[in-house]
Amino acid sequence: MSDWPDRRILELFGIENPILLAPMAGFGTPALASAVAEAGGLGALASATITPEQARADIAAYRALTAKPLNLNFFCHRPPQPDPARDAAWRARLAPYYRDLGLDPDMPLSASSREPFNDAFLAVVEALRPEIVSFHFGLPARRLLDRVRATGAKVISSATTVAEARFLEAEGCDAIIAQGAEAGGHRGMFLTEDVASQVGTFALVPQVVDAVGVPVIAAGGIADARGVVAALALGASAVQIGTAFLFAPEAKVAPPHRRALDRTAADETAITNVFTGRPARGVVNRLMRDVGPLSADAPAFPLAGGAVAPLRAATEPQGSGDFMPLWSGQAARLARPMPAGDLVRMLAAEAVARLG
Amino acid sequence: MSDWPDRRILELFGIENPILLAPMAGFGTPALASAVAEAGGLGALASATITPEQARADIAAYRALTAKPLNLNFFCHRPPQPDPARDAAWRARLAPYYRDLGLDPDMPLSASSREPFNDAFLAVVEALRPEIVSFHFGLPARRLLDRVRATGAKVISSATTVAEARFLEAEGCDAIIAQGAEAGGHRGMFLTEDVASQVGTFALVPQVVDAVGVPVIAAGGIADARGVVAALALGASAVQIGTAFLFAPEAKVAPPHRRALDRTAADETAITNVFTGRPARGVVNRLMRDVGPLSADAPAFPLAGGAVAPLRAATEPQGSGDFMPLWSGQAARLARPMPAGDLVRMLAAEAVARLG
Repeated sequence: MSDWPDRRILELFGIENPILLAPMAGFGTPALASAVAEAGGLGALASATITPEQARADIAAYRALTAKPLNLNFFCHRPPQPDPARDAAWRARLAPYYRDLGLDPDMPLSASSREPFNDAFLAVVEALRPEIVSFHFGLPARRLLDRVRATGAKVISSATTVAEARFLEAEGCDAIIAQGAEAGGHRGMFLTEDVASQVGTFALVPQVVDAVGVPVIAAGGIADARGVVAALALGASAVQIGTAFLFAPEAKVAPPHRRALDRTAADETAITNVFTGRPARGVVNRLMRDVGPLSADAPAFPLAGGAVAPLRAATEPQGSGDFMPLWSGQAARLARPMPAGDLVRMLAAEAVARLG
Repeated sequence: MSDWPDRRILELFGIENPILLAPMAGFGTPALASAVAEAGGLGALASATITPEQARADIAAYRALTAKPLNLNFFCHRPPQPDPARDAAWRARLAPYYRDLGLDPDMPLSASSREPFNDAFLAVVEALRPEIVSFHFGLPARRLLDRVRATGAKVISSATTVAEARFLEAEGCDAIIAQGAEAGGHRGMFLTEDVASQVGTFALVPQVVDAVGVPVIAAGGIADARGVVAALALGASAVQIGTAFLFAPEAKVAPPHRRALDRTAADETAITNVFTGRPARGVVNRLMRDVGPLSADAPAFPLAGGAVAPLRAATEPQGSGDFMPLWSGQAARLARPMPAGDLVRMLAAEAVARLG
């Protein structure tokens, strides 16, 4: 596995293959991450949907399974200002579904729980020392970031535009993920809110490579060895893959989500804000079709999710994916179901053979 | 120039380099097309914005400049049904701009003139025998298509989804352009109207390659040798390049358009329907920002253009690009201004060296 032409990311992270598992908050597991790591890729664990205590447990599970480096991922959005009028408009928009499902449209809601990086998570980083710390939605406050760096962790984050890439480099990121519009899940966008001008992987990667000096990791639409080779041709030093790993048995994917992934064509996904308030790509389903895909009524991230949660809770047990996010990139059809380690090894072997 | 690994498109079209000039109705010229052809690429002339007589003249000019094959391009939309209510709504939407510019919002309008392929254009094909005939927005009626094929022309068209690619192959296309969402100008979409689910080049190309047996030409976001090599890695047999050729001196680009191209970042374009009624990617300008980028008020293609034309006519002479389409893909920043033939030779030499 030493035949990769660009070794910058391999040396930066101490890995053998330039293949990063996307953290995929809510879908990744220590088993998935460690399988990727043992196969020479970079394993990742996400913290956005769990507590610091759960993060500690996940890291311990990962460390028990592998001695390889770990990428620990955090969201770093600013918690939104309360906006009762917008919340009320959103509940009114969703009220017909509540009534259809026999739910009280005025029922009390749990707060949607996506925690940004904070002191409690910093304590996890300082105690458990992930080799790489990645952020989504920009970077945390300087005070927190400096302390992450002081642990010796390499720091990376996602850029969806050249301006975001330049910002991340200026703030000291060791590498930058160029997240093309094909990518599944949340857009990392943080200097723009304009979904219409988001850039495809093919155009974004070389322009980010030209704009920054640090190594670039291509993400979005990469699911097979052709994509790995093409990303390197565009100037990337590595790739980050998400959706293709959702087909691995180690991923935690709810049955309606798995069925959607199995049958979805590339043009059946869209970028939507109806599940969380931030733009994210998923398989088009009933809520996206009716209310979105982009709705001006959706409260700020992560609050939009609060009023959607009861609809999901009432329908998912019947096997319905109507009201749950079915995150997927545009290359799901290229994925082949297999254990995650086998996928890393296959991608690496096929890519090296093509590059050879 | 014989070192290309995949020779299918080279043999199909009788060219030396797998680089197609995008036809670019309104911006291409016989000089541009012949320069590309003489350098071993495939030259193209567009007919969508001109009369059959002008097309004959352009072809004669091309043939006088080169003996290489020619790709003659046509739009093949269905002429829209009259819809006076929608026309009136569109005029009302644009009326404030008319008043700001001292124009009468009720002034008579010229019909927007984008002619679909028809008997008059068929007569041009039958008389002047372009070696390749390409269509945008699907394919023309079977009767017309059969007669095009009877001339011996190879027939190609653009797909923006896997379903469109399968349709085009079933209808007998000799090759298929996989037009990713990064591409500038009009989306070739014809089995869907949903812009939100359009697919990026990186995800679209390999899925089209997997779905059809004919060779695939990648388009969208390709402007340098990295893109050529990456497109081939994804399984394409050739590339089609548009925006990068707008920087060549042989292209016919109005001054406000050229200035926009010179300064535009990848994330300053969007897909809009405000100029023609069909989705097309261009640099975001005043009309797109105010009215779109996508407006439900815009009349069907090509009628939306009728009411925009006086606004352009009143502002472009002052150097303003506020009301004119500034078509551009997302990779304009990668383009290097040079004569078109030099660009083809440079792309080919650099790509072959990288593939080497």
